[in-house]
Amino acid sequence: MELDTISAISTPMGEGAIAIVRISGEEAVVIADRLYKGKKSLREVESHTINYGHIVDPKSGDVIEEVMVSVLKAPRTFTKEDMIEINCHGGIVSVNRILQLVLNEGARLAEPGEFTKRAFLNGRIDLSQAEGVIDLIRAKTDKAMNVAMKQVEGKLSQRIQKLRQALLETLAHVEVNIDYPEYDAEEMTLALLKEKAEYVQKDIERLLQTAQQGKILRDGLSTVIIGRPNVGKSSLLNSLVQETKAIVTDIPGTTRDVIEEFVNIRGVPLRLLDTAGIRETEDVVEKIGVERSRKVVEEAELVLLVLNYNETLTAADEELFQISKGRDRIILINKSDLPMKTDMERIRKLAENQPVITTSILMDEGLDELEEAIKTLFFKGDLEPGDMTYVSNSRHIALLEQAKRSIADAIEAAAAAMPVDMVQIDITKTWELLGEVIGESVHDSLIDQLFSQFCLGK
Amino acid sequence: MELDTISAISTPMGEGAIAIVRISGEEAVVIADRLYKGKKSLREVESHTINYGHIVDPKSGDVIEEVMVSVLKAPRTFTKEDMIEINCHGGIVSVNRILQLVLNEGARLAEPGEFTKRAFLNGRIDLSQAEGVIDLIRAKTDKAMNVAMKQVEGKLSQRIQKLRQALLETLAHVEVNIDYPEYDAEEMTLALLKEKAEYVQKDIERLLQTAQQGKILRDGLSTVIIGRPNVGKSSLLNSLVQETKAIVTDIPGTTRDVIEEFVNIRGVPLRLLDTAGIRETEDVVEKIGVERSRKVVEEAELVLLVLNYNETLTAADEELFQISKGRDRIILINKSDLPMKTDMERIRKLAENQPVITTSILMDEGLDELEEAIKTLFFKGDLEPGDMTYVSNSRHIALLEQAKRSIADAIEAAAAAMPVDMVQIDITKTWELLGEVIGESVHDSLIDQLFSQFCLGK
Repeated sequence: MELDTISAISTPMGEGAIAIVRISGEEAVVIADRLYKGKKSLREVESHTINYGHIVDPKSGDVIEEVMVSVLKAPRTFTKEDMIEINCHGGIVSVNRILQLVLNEGARLAEPGEFTKRAFLNGRIDLSQAEGVIDLIRAKTDKAMNVAMKQVEGKLSQRIQKLRQALLETLAHVEVNIDYPEYDAEEMTLALLKEKAEYVQKDIERLLQTAQQGKILRDGLSTVIIGRPNVGKSSLLNSLVQETKAIVTDIPGTTRDVIEEFVNIRGVPLRLLDTAGIRETEDVVEKIGVERSRKVVEEAELVLLVLNYNETLTAADEELFQISKGRDRIILINKSDLPMKTDMERIRKLAENQPVITTSILMDEGLDELEEAIKTLFFKGDLEPGDMTYVSNSRHIALLEQAKRSIADAIEAAAAAMPVDMVQIDITKTWELLGEVIGESVHDSLIDQLFSQFCLGK
Repeated sequence: MELDTISAISTPMGEGAIAIVRISGEEAVVIADRLYKGKKSLREVESHTINYGHIVDPKSGDVIEEVMVSVLKAPRTFTKEDMIEINCHGGIVSVNRILQLVLNEGARLAEPGEFTKRAFLNGRIDLSQAEGVIDLIRAKTDKAMNVAMKQVEGKLSQRIQKLRQALLETLAHVEVNIDYPEYDAEEMTLALLKEKAEYVQKDIERLLQTAQQGKILRDGLSTVIIGRPNVGKSSLLNSLVQETKAIVTDIPGTTRDVIEEFVNIRGVPLRLLDTAGIRETEDVVEKIGVERSRKVVEEAELVLLVLNYNETLTAADEELFQISKGRDRIILINKSDLPMKTDMERIRKLAENQPVITTSILMDEGLDELEEAIKTLFFKGDLEPGDMTYVSNSRHIALLEQAKRSIADAIEAAAAAMPVDMVQIDITKTWELLGEVIGESVHDSLIDQLFSQFCLGK
């Protein structure tokens, strides 16, 4: 495989202490060397060394920057190609100027994710590992990071490859039997196929069992707080954010248009939706409108419905029960520091066996039960130990679901004593679907789309 | 000098391809090594090498991140101390987690600019070089960067040191003559002092001659466009921004509260003030208010006063002339594509020999003259060649002005045949003032204040 030489700025934009221009490809060292003045030519230095020097504009002879240049020679690099990283003082003008010089010398501006794509195309990592890299960068909690890191390390890939290997060996074995039918009876072949298929089925199921938790750990559990004005939604929000410390506070450069707050509830990352809505409408009586709640409830995986302990149940309360019906839901009856005026029996009926918790957010009461309820609802029992491999990516989950169906078809066909080649087709399909997880036999367009989600310079 | 081990994140905050945790100090390698799992211990690798491996939480044993660790051993480093740079995948959680582990192992969180401060305290760079580093990071134009880079390289320091050396030698010489008066007459000593002082004076003046340009190149020339509504202020602004391409467009993470645009006019960087004001008030007749103009004019170094070629001069126009009186100013009579209705003679009178240019921004006429006028106004003649050393920092300029006064005092005293020791006092004072430029004999509080302007991790 021969690819051209690419370059991009690999540090976030903004004034900082260090900025990096990255170059990858056959010409990386030669291009950098034409701009570099140091003790030795970059072509002569050892791989994996850091070299102090200056970037000089080859046309004007002007010294542009004082730099440390990392020389990383193929194949022990991120892309498996020759790589250069020019570390400069973190000014915006300075790093852009260096990039411009590198492009002038013949490198092409890299597309988002193109370095990681090369790591994939050059066979250093597979597709699920590359997807893990995005997740690692985007991770909002330590736990999410751990899940992603496992994927980057190839733990999921290894599991998938083991299954594919088992399927491949089975197919090969059957092939032999078909070529030499005298060695085996059809029946015995079917029995073997069934046995192997069941083993694979079991492991796919085991992986899928981690999917719900994995997806929550990765993306956060989209959560909405609904309730009439003045029941304490805003206090609940503040209390959750405060107590657990919001994970994403004010990161410069992130858009604040979509206001989401991440909070970490006993290992469950909640992504609180419509927090702006809560803050702006809390004081405006009835402005909230059931309509808005209906909308956000639709997107939510967890609904926290807040009622007032100190008021009788209203038609609006009943309507909020209605619109959140069938959802994972926790009912909070807040303001228990005041006299009870609500109808507990009616609430329990409406709650349909979902948790009902009496709280006084003001007095800091009932919040422990809330946290426990959230944990119990999504992590039946404790979180798995740290070395667990989670499936967390929607694409992987969808493929595993399909693989599960097709291996079930294979087992069914074998049980019904269908012709061996019919069973073979289902097993081959399972093998292919598993292959798609790690990026074998996937379309170029999918690959392009996946890598375009990366940031520039990655 | 013995300092503790410090650490900070050295890349701008935000999702990126690479994030760096920097450590400096005696314990840097040991601390990093306790968190690192790779082929070799970091204590065993060569200096200036890049080492692939993983960061492992020493308590839980969890693999936290896949990293490249740069090991830079004293003294060939930025701080002259042992340094470690941990390059990780650019996630916010990930880089913060690594920093946390480093701090847990005994490093202290670095203050803003503390790495550069160490470079200064450990004698690798002097104060004016350190100040050049800030300027380099903040530079908004290539030219500003070049000026800063020269300072980082120590060109200014060398000039200052040469002058100090000359003063010191003179003083030593005089000292000898005083100790052995039989070797020399008082008169001859005074003549020598005067001669040397005049040489120093000349060079200080030469440096100060670069100060106006230097300051403009460094900070940009604060420029304001004033004029009644509908004279074309907004078109002029857009035309300047478009034609020269605004240098600072939309850098994520920079505050947009203070709206400034940098444009590069034939090497002169204009910092356009109150561009928001122009954009919001252009269509609102008379809303601009002379009051607002008065305010922004006060802060401006260059005023562009726009009049309408197609309207008679109004009282508001006259008032705008009045409030910008005495300023560096260029008068634009815009809309020359329409019939002339204004009073050119009156305008020329009000302009008081300042440039008056007839433009049609709509037809792209007169803008060349404007650009030339700006250049002529601030850079009498062409810009100096690239190897010029500019004084650009207000602190340096103020010190050089003081030094110029005190060396003049010395010359005057010598000419008036004052006692030699009086002349010596002035020369010593000049020597000290020049020393403050490069950070000798300056107060700790000044040093602290200077370095606190840096970003974190620098």
